[in-house]
Amino acid sequence: MIQGKFITFEGPDGAGKTTVAKGVLERLKKAGIDCLYTREPGGIEIAEQIRSVILNPANTAMDARTEALLYAASRRQHLVEKVIPALNKGQLVLCDRFVDSSLAYQGYGRNLGFDAVYDLNKFAIENYFPDLTLFLDIDEQKGLERISSRENKDRLDMESLAFHHRVNQGYKEVLRRFAYRIKVVDASLSIDEVIENCLAYILKVIA
Amino acid sequence: MIQGKFITFEGPDGAGKTTVAKGVLERLKKAGIDCLYTREPGGIEIAEQIRSVILNPANTAMDARTEALLYAASRRQHLVEKVIPALNKGQLVLCDRFVDSSLAYQGYGRNLGFDAVYDLNKFAIENYFPDLTLFLDIDEQKGLERISSRENKDRLDMESLAFHHRVNQGYKEVLRRFAYRIKVVDASLSIDEVIENCLAYILKVIA
Repeated sequence: MIQGKFITFEGPDGAGKTTVAKGVLERLKKAGIDCLYTREPGGIEIAEQIRSVILNPANTAMDARTEALLYAASRRQHLVEKVIPALNKGQLVLCDRFVDSSLAYQGYGRNLGFDAVYDLNKFAIENYFPDLTLFLDIDEQKGLERISSRENKDRLDMESLAFHHRVNQGYKEVLRRFAYRIKVVDASLSIDEVIENCLAYILKVIA
Repeated sequence: MIQGKFITFEGPDGAGKTTVAKGVLERLKKAGIDCLYTREPGGIEIAEQIRSVILNPANTAMDARTEALLYAASRRQHLVEKVIPALNKGQLVLCDRFVDSSLAYQGYGRNLGFDAVYDLNKFAIENYFPDLTLFLDIDEQKGLERISSRENKDRLDMESLAFHHRVNQGYKEVLRRFAYRIKVVDASLSIDEVIENCLAYILKVIA
């Protein structure tokens, strides 16, 4: 069976992940590489239903463990219905956020503990860890300024400064633990430079 | 803080759990004992939303791990919003199905493995294991006959005979592992006898 490569984009809110990932996609497509951009829940009906429960601003009573379980459920369904079929067709899959986001946001942001959230996510993804993770590194203050200028904030955007600080600490732990698959990209550079730097790492993986 | 007792009712479909639990509730209330009957999602808004995703007959593409994660999420929210507050008020909580159902249905029925589903549920419930679990024991064939006569079958009722057989094997494993908190009640007796036998075990726990 042909086997594609699985690339994830990570980083705190405001690092520019979506813009960068879409820029990378465009460049790869122009180079004739068969690739797919996605992010959870990614149009997968069951994952969309789960996500609407998580992000509903009325669900203020949601417990942190419930939230972590729902993210893992949405991740599982998106992986099974969208990512794995694409990998099996030999596509390069670019996924905007994946397991590392839960480690940072639920493990640290919600204080559930890194290992507990890691175990939960291993149940959800089995052995589908990314071949490469691009971490978009942005100064914490700058990231927060970008979030605060957004309209239509969801339940997570409205979290406290302390929450977002813990998320940043969580990402530092992610970088320590998974150095073998993560590359840090300076997200303070121009968008073109960030895209170039990401592409260079991706080309090494698919070479 | 006053601490109530947490009693769960378990058993395969068709064992009569709901009828028995409600009969037990009525008898305890008549005896002046402050108790609460509940079952997941139990009117908890977030848990109801999750449950509607699980049981939606249109969601035929749902992966078994997604289903297990959603059951754990619904369980967590129901526990936090309904069971724990009742226990903290000193109430006797009668819960129709709990963690053992996931071990039997997801661990064995869906072949996800007992230990994987147990770990997932420990994340969801932390140390809120039942003080007593009443297992309503029914002949497998008889249980299936009762299900097949139901109108309005949901996605689980429509499962294969092989699935329900695996569930029964799962419950046997549950009985072996958790003998210290589970009492087996013969559900082939008359409803009044079953209720009496359950009450006898409950009275020992609250004595």
